[in-house]
Amino acid sequence: MTQISRTESTFAPPVMEARRWLQGVAFPAERPLINVSQAAPVDPPPEPLRKVIAETALNQPEAHLYGPVLGLPELRAEVAAQWSGAYGGTLSTENVAITSGCNQAFCAAINALTNEGDEVILPTPWYFNHKMWLDMNGLQCVPLAAGAGLLPDPDQAATYITERTRAIVLVSPNNPGGVEYPASLLRAFYELAQRHGIALIVDETYRDFDARSGAAHDLFTDPDWGDTLIQLYSFSKAYRLTGHRVGAMVASPARLAEAEKFLDTVTICPNQLGQHAALWGMRNLGQWLAGERAEILDRRAAIEDNMPKLAARGWELLGNGAYFAYLRHPFAMPSNELAQKLVAEAGVLLLPGTMFRPADDPSGARELRLAFANVDRAQIGTLFDRLERLSWPLAPTGPSA
Amino acid sequence: MTQISRTESTFAPPVMEARRWLQGVAFPAERPLINVSQAAPVDPPPEPLRKVIAETALNQPEAHLYGPVLGLPELRAEVAAQWSGAYGGTLSTENVAITSGCNQAFCAAINALTNEGDEVILPTPWYFNHKMWLDMNGLQCVPLAAGAGLLPDPDQAATYITERTRAIVLVSPNNPGGVEYPASLLRAFYELAQRHGIALIVDETYRDFDARSGAAHDLFTDPDWGDTLIQLYSFSKAYRLTGHRVGAMVASPARLAEAEKFLDTVTICPNQLGQHAALWGMRNLGQWLAGERAEILDRRAAIEDNMPKLAARGWELLGNGAYFAYLRHPFAMPSNELAQKLVAEAGVLLLPGTMFRPADDPSGARELRLAFANVDRAQIGTLFDRLERLSWPLAPTGPSA
Repeated sequence: MTQISRTESTFAPPVMEARRWLQGVAFPAERPLINVSQAAPVDPPPEPLRKVIAETALNQPEAHLYGPVLGLPELRAEVAAQWSGAYGGTLSTENVAITSGCNQAFCAAINALTNEGDEVILPTPWYFNHKMWLDMNGLQCVPLAAGAGLLPDPDQAATYITERTRAIVLVSPNNPGGVEYPASLLRAFYELAQRHGIALIVDETYRDFDARSGAAHDLFTDPDWGDTLIQLYSFSKAYRLTGHRVGAMVASPARLAEAEKFLDTVTICPNQLGQHAALWGMRNLGQWLAGERAEILDRRAAIEDNMPKLAARGWELLGNGAYFAYLRHPFAMPSNELAQKLVAEAGVLLLPGTMFRPADDPSGARELRLAFANVDRAQIGTLFDRLERLSWPLAPTGPSA
Repeated sequence: MTQISRTESTFAPPVMEARRWLQGVAFPAERPLINVSQAAPVDPPPEPLRKVIAETALNQPEAHLYGPVLGLPELRAEVAAQWSGAYGGTLSTENVAITSGCNQAFCAAINALTNEGDEVILPTPWYFNHKMWLDMNGLQCVPLAAGAGLLPDPDQAATYITERTRAIVLVSPNNPGGVEYPASLLRAFYELAQRHGIALIVDETYRDFDARSGAAHDLFTDPDWGDTLIQLYSFSKAYRLTGHRVGAMVASPARLAEAEKFLDTVTICPNQLGQHAALWGMRNLGQWLAGERAEILDRRAAIEDNMPKLAARGWELLGNGAYFAYLRHPFAMPSNELAQKLVAEAGVLLLPGTMFRPADDPSGARELRLAFANVDRAQIGTLFDRLERLSWPLAPTGPSA
């Protein structure tokens, strides 16, 4: 084999690489590991939802059999109805596909839109699985460096559009940056994509934890939204269903018919019990989810509250929201080296900015992501205390270089 | 968009296309639809297994959370142990990845092996999702027409190998042909692949319903099997878990590390409840599965028993085994037209041979696949009676042209 394969042309999964740093490291009882590496709930779904899954397994024979490729019609209809209410506009069942997690929704969207050598614009810092899928499919990833407030600039994006560009991908609230993109910014990207006849993919995995009230954007109110917009969603965070793999792709029926070919070939259908769980959650856990959101927003506030002690040591908070705080550290050491050292020296596991940036982008070496959803206010205090105590040589150019 | 996308370069899912033929057709009570279109159990798993799933949902919090990309270690170990016993040779946990169904195992294997423009040898008639994945990934599918007894010929395959060939794919017992490949044939393909430094992918989704006793092949006894062989498996058929999406890829650790990138990016991990179900099934349902196999073998025998009435009308049984009978019909009408007519005129839904062959292969027009796993001996009799009564113009060249 002289030529490298699809997978050989991309990097190994970062979360797993980070997990390997834990091997052989002992964490004393008085200083347990604080793991802020992965954006995932570590608690199971609430008991009523677990009971629904159990009862479905016992009493609904069809929940064990193949279902439609695009998902349970009831769940598709529920998403359409709730989205119509939340965003305005009118979505129908035919606009919604259920996928085996939101990563798969992204893969299906990209393969429905692109072919070998096409270009996709991806703001940096990026969500690494997006970058991996582009690499694995022979696509040209065009990085769009986010500017002030970690916001990407549509005017800059416009200069990157070529005849091979097929899509712009946005994640809001952002992973890894935590930033909530203003509705006007999403609208500007939407109009840019519309003007060029390309797709705008908006991954709203963290929408349920947006600090703002009301709709995050008004794009679904455009009657022609289906020509431009593809929205992605995950049921994993809202209802703590990460282990069930349930996500969604919201798009035009024509694009879903293309996605359907991919989904049929890769998984045949999303697993059924997880879909029943997501449906019950959407119908019954609104109140509970509001409480979850309040807790996440308190943790986000705890990041702000603890930030002064790090700011005094030269750290900078670049973004904070959803499940993430994105920080600029003051040390001379590159972040990938720093992150590995933090495991033994501070009892902290987090991901370095190098995992969210192209190799030739020097910003990554100064950045760290904290996925704070699993650590409460007290642990966030402890985490920041540990980071405050670090005393390594500072970067020569200072914190805002 | 001038260039067509990945998905636009492949056809729509055949099973769904066939399901659309049912629309608007009424089936009288005295002649209900006989659906032999899809290879899937229509009954749920046995009650003890449903109870295990329910109890796991209630009492194992971690079964709702992300698990390892390559699957539950206990399930990987169980496959390795049972396979070592069944095939001889020594497999370890590191040789097994759990996937979201067997289709996904195929996708992961192909993407770990190939890149744009590479060639993969696929015997015809093929399993259509294999062909779809090759098309969707810019690969050259090299059809290898099966000969007598629907068996592919390794000597012919040898003449198709070029410097771009990366793999040969075999399905045994075969979908759609039903044929069980002799161990010596699998060995011949294995040695061919080994000689050329390419991979041999063997999809053994239907292995639990093989009529033969003992191992289907001895390939795992070669200490270097991991350099050549990739075996695929599905838990869906054995334990009636189609709706849970659990399959497996058995390969060298190096190849699984490549597959892991694909699996992480597309689904993050297989759903957890399905994996727990598969594990319990492997450990506790051996006896039950033996009964399932006996029932399937009886249905297969019922096909043989009923065949004389069709043979008298010019039909030919090309292959019979696993979940499938593969037939050559005597009519002048092409099979894709015939299959659609059979819905209203005979109350039968099955798939035409055109779905399992390249468009330029005339054999497909004369072939039909019966997926008989869901119809018992009595229904098979009824099905054959209905087919026997068909009186359309015969193909001019006769049944064996």
